[in-house]
Amino acid sequence: MLVVPLIERKRDGGALTPEEWSALVAGYTAGRIPDYQISALLMAVVWRGLERGELAALTDAMIASGQRLSFEGWSTPRIDKHSTGGVGDKVSLVLAPLVAACGIAVPMMSGRGLGHTGGTLDKLEAIPGFRTDLPLAAAKAQLQKLGAVLIGQTPEIAPADKRLYALRDVTGTVPAIPLIAASIMSKKLAEGLTGLVLDVKHGSGAFLPQTERALDLSQTMIALGEDRGCPTVALLTAMDRPLGRACGNALETEEAILALRGEGPEDLMDVTYALGVEMLVMAKVESTAAKARQRLENALSSGLAAEKFEQIIEAQGGNPKVVEDPSVMPQAQAVEVFAARSTGVVTAVEPRTIGQAIVAMGGGRTQVDDVVEPSVGFVITVKPGDKVLAGEPIASVFARDAAGIQTGFEALQRAITVGEKLVERPLPLISHRVTKKGVESLAAPERARAAPATGRKR
Amino acid sequence: MLVVPLIERKRDGGALTPEEWSALVAGYTAGRIPDYQISALLMAVVWRGLERGELAALTDAMIASGQRLSFEGWSTPRIDKHSTGGVGDKVSLVLAPLVAACGIAVPMMSGRGLGHTGGTLDKLEAIPGFRTDLPLAAAKAQLQKLGAVLIGQTPEIAPADKRLYALRDVTGTVPAIPLIAASIMSKKLAEGLTGLVLDVKHGSGAFLPQTERALDLSQTMIALGEDRGCPTVALLTAMDRPLGRACGNALETEEAILALRGEGPEDLMDVTYALGVEMLVMAKVESTAAKARQRLENALSSGLAAEKFEQIIEAQGGNPKVVEDPSVMPQAQAVEVFAARSTGVVTAVEPRTIGQAIVAMGGGRTQVDDVVEPSVGFVITVKPGDKVLAGEPIASVFARDAAGIQTGFEALQRAITVGEKLVERPLPLISHRVTKKGVESLAAPERARAAPATGRKR
Repeated sequence: MLVVPLIERKRDGGALTPEEWSALVAGYTAGRIPDYQISALLMAVVWRGLERGELAALTDAMIASGQRLSFEGWSTPRIDKHSTGGVGDKVSLVLAPLVAACGIAVPMMSGRGLGHTGGTLDKLEAIPGFRTDLPLAAAKAQLQKLGAVLIGQTPEIAPADKRLYALRDVTGTVPAIPLIAASIMSKKLAEGLTGLVLDVKHGSGAFLPQTERALDLSQTMIALGEDRGCPTVALLTAMDRPLGRACGNALETEEAILALRGEGPEDLMDVTYALGVEMLVMAKVESTAAKARQRLENALSSGLAAEKFEQIIEAQGGNPKVVEDPSVMPQAQAVEVFAARSTGVVTAVEPRTIGQAIVAMGGGRTQVDDVVEPSVGFVITVKPGDKVLAGEPIASVFARDAAGIQTGFEALQRAITVGEKLVERPLPLISHRVTKKGVESLAAPERARAAPATGRKR
Repeated sequence: MLVVPLIERKRDGGALTPEEWSALVAGYTAGRIPDYQISALLMAVVWRGLERGELAALTDAMIASGQRLSFEGWSTPRIDKHSTGGVGDKVSLVLAPLVAACGIAVPMMSGRGLGHTGGTLDKLEAIPGFRTDLPLAAAKAQLQKLGAVLIGQTPEIAPADKRLYALRDVTGTVPAIPLIAASIMSKKLAEGLTGLVLDVKHGSGAFLPQTERALDLSQTMIALGEDRGCPTVALLTAMDRPLGRACGNALETEEAILALRGEGPEDLMDVTYALGVEMLVMAKVESTAAKARQRLENALSSGLAAEKFEQIIEAQGGNPKVVEDPSVMPQAQAVEVFAARSTGVVTAVEPRTIGQAIVAMGGGRTQVDDVVEPSVGFVITVKPGDKVLAGEPIASVFARDAAGIQTGFEALQRAITVGEKLVERPLPLISHRVTKKGVESLAAPERARAAPATGRKR
C-alpha cells in the first residue's frame, strides 16, 4: 500500500475509505508502516478531522487489532463507566462496587495517571497487594462471579490503540476529538458491553476545558457506541475545581472507601449517583431515575456496596481490611495543615495546579515508567464560593518530606484564591446530559449563581 | 530539549523562536530527534505556516548544518538560476554556458528528476562520461577557471535539507511554501552567490499550479535571499504546456545544444534570454535590459556560448563532441511519428501527462534509486493555439520498445487535445517579474488572447 497518497488526501481535507483505514491500522500494528508516516497522518487528522464513516472505520480497525470479550449466553447486563479524567476523580472506585451490588456487571478497564490527572489503576494499587494486571480469562471469571473487575488495559485488547496512543503522546497529536473518541471507544467496545456511561469533564482542569469541545467529544463517542449497538450516554461534569476533598492516590482511595461507608463528600456522591442512575436505567434494572437513585442509596446504606468492594479487593490480591481500616494503606511521612491567608470568599481552587503539584511531589508521572509514591497529595476542604476566615485551616498537605510540604504549600497558595466575592461562577456540578437524541442542559443558572459549587455548610 | 511542547505550539498556531528552530535542525541532523516528531512538526507547518522570522531561522539553521562556499578576494560576480521545475525545462543547460560566456560565474547546483518533472542532472548525464558528482574543491576550481560548473547537491552543502527533504517526500509534507522556500534557498545561499534569479513555474504542469501560490513562493524566496544579502529576482513562466519541443533527458540535452547553436525553439529562447538578462543586469555586466539581451545574443551567434559548453563538458569528464554531433548521445531503439486525429485548433498540450508518460517509459523516477533510460521521450511540435490538419505529424515518440511506443501514443492522445477553438487561454510565457519591491505584471492580455502561446508560423 502507498501511504503517501493517503496522507496527502487527508492533508488536503479529503476522506480515506474504510478499507484504507483498516489497512493503515493493520500495517502500522504489524510494523510495516513507519512511525514517521503515521505521525504526519495523525497531525493531518488533528488539522482536518475525520468524517463519521472514517472515525467508525478507524475505531473498528483498532478493535479488530485485538480480542473482543464475548459473554454468549450470559444475560447479566454489562455496563462500564468511563471518565475523561480529572483531579480528585475517584468515582470509579465507588461506582463499580456500588453498581455491581445492584446486579450489574462492571468490566472496568482503566488507565494510569500521566500528566496532571490521576489514574484509577494508581489509586487501586495504593491498596497493599492489589493487582490490576489480571490475565483476561481471570478477569472474565471474576466479572461473572462478583459482578465487577478493575483492571488495566490488557495486551489482548486493542493493541493498535496502545501503539497509536504512545505515538500521539510524543508527537503533539493527543487533543484531537476523533482520535480521543476512537481511542476510548475502541477499548470500551472490545469489553463486550451492553451499555456505556461517559463522565466527560470540562473546566480548567479537564483534558478539554471548553464546554463546546467536551460536548463535541461526548456526541462523537455516543455516535460511535450507538452505531455499534452499544447504548451510550454522557454526563458533563465540572472540573474547574477538584472533585471531593482528597487529591492523591491513597488519599483518594481512602475517600472512596469513606464514600462507600456513607461518609463521602456531597459533590462526589452527586456525581457517583448520577452516573449510577444512568447505568441502572440503561440496564433496565430500574425503570425510573428516582427508583434507581433509591436503589443505589439502599445498596450503600445497607453496607452491600462496601462489602462488594471488599470482595473485589480480596479477589484481586489486595488486603480487604483496608475497607474497615484505611490506615493499612501507605501513610505520608510529613503532614501539615494549610490555613487561609485572608478572610473572604474562595474564588478558585485550580485543579491543574493541584494535579501538577502532586506530580512534583512524587505522586504522579511525567513519563510512563515513573514510579509513583501513593501517599502524597492534598485534602482540600473548601470549594469556590465558600467563605473563609484568615487563619482558618482549609487544607492538609501530605508529602514525603519537608521539601514536599514546601512544594505543596506553594501550590495551594497559587491554587486557592480568596477575594471579596466570586469573580467567575463555578460550573454546575453536572451541567449536561447527552444521548443519541441530543444535548439536554441540566443546570439551573439562577440557583447555581446563588449557591456555592457544593453544599459546604458554615 | 523537549520537542513535544514545540510541536504543540506550532500545531496551535504559535511561533517557535530562532533558537528553537536552530536546536531542532541541529538535533535532527545529529540523530537526537526522531523522524516521527519532525514529520508531525512538518505537517503542523504545512497547516499553520511559518512567520518570517521562523522561516529565516529555519533556513539559517539548514545552511549552518553544512559548509558555505566562500570566494574571498575573487571579484567576479557569482549568479545562479533556479527553476521550480517543469516538463521540457532544459533552460539551465543553455543558460549556464551562455551567461558564463558573458563573464559571470555560475555555480549551478541542480537536482535529479523525481515525479513528472525531469532533473538537470539526468539531462547532463545523458552526455557520455559527464560527471555531476565533483568534489566541492574541484567544482570551485572549475568555476574559477571556466566560469561555470554544473553539479549535484554535495554532502557538504546543507545536509539538513537533504535529510528533511527525504522525510518530507515520504510524509506528504512537500507542498508547503515556507518549507519549499527554505529547502531551495538554504542550498543556493550556501553557494556564496552575489545574486540569484528564480524561474518559478505556474500552470497545470507546475509543482504549484496556481499563480497566486507561485507568486507567494517567489516573494517568500526573495525575502529570504534579500534579508541575507543576496539580491534575488523571480520570473513567473508558463508550465501549462511543455517548454520547447523536446521532453526527455537526451532529447532535451540535444535541444539545448541546438539552442546554443542558434536553432532553439522560440519559447525556450525567450525564457532563457529573459533569465539571462536578469543575471547580467544584476551582475552589473550591462546597465540595461536591452544591452544585456544584445550581449547574450552576440555570445550565442558568435559561437562563444557553445564553445563554453564544450569546455564545461570536457572539464566534467563528458564527451565534448556532443556539441557538434548530438548523435553521440544514447539513441532510442524505437521511434514513431504521431499524427493529429482531427482538423482544428490545439486546445491543450498537458505537460503532466507527458511527464508521467516519460516516467512510465523508463525515462524518469518514481523512487530515488530508479535507473533512468536517457533516450526516451517526446518531441512535440505543436503548442496550444496552433492549427492542425487531420493526419499531420505533430509529435514523435522515442522509446525502448514497441510497448514504450504504445505508452507514448496513449499519453499523446490524452495530452494533446484538438477542438474548434481555444477554450482556455494559454498562460503568457513570462507573466510576472517579482523583486523585493513587489510584483510587476508583464503580460499584455489583449495580445496574448489574440496570438498563440508561441509563434509557430503556419
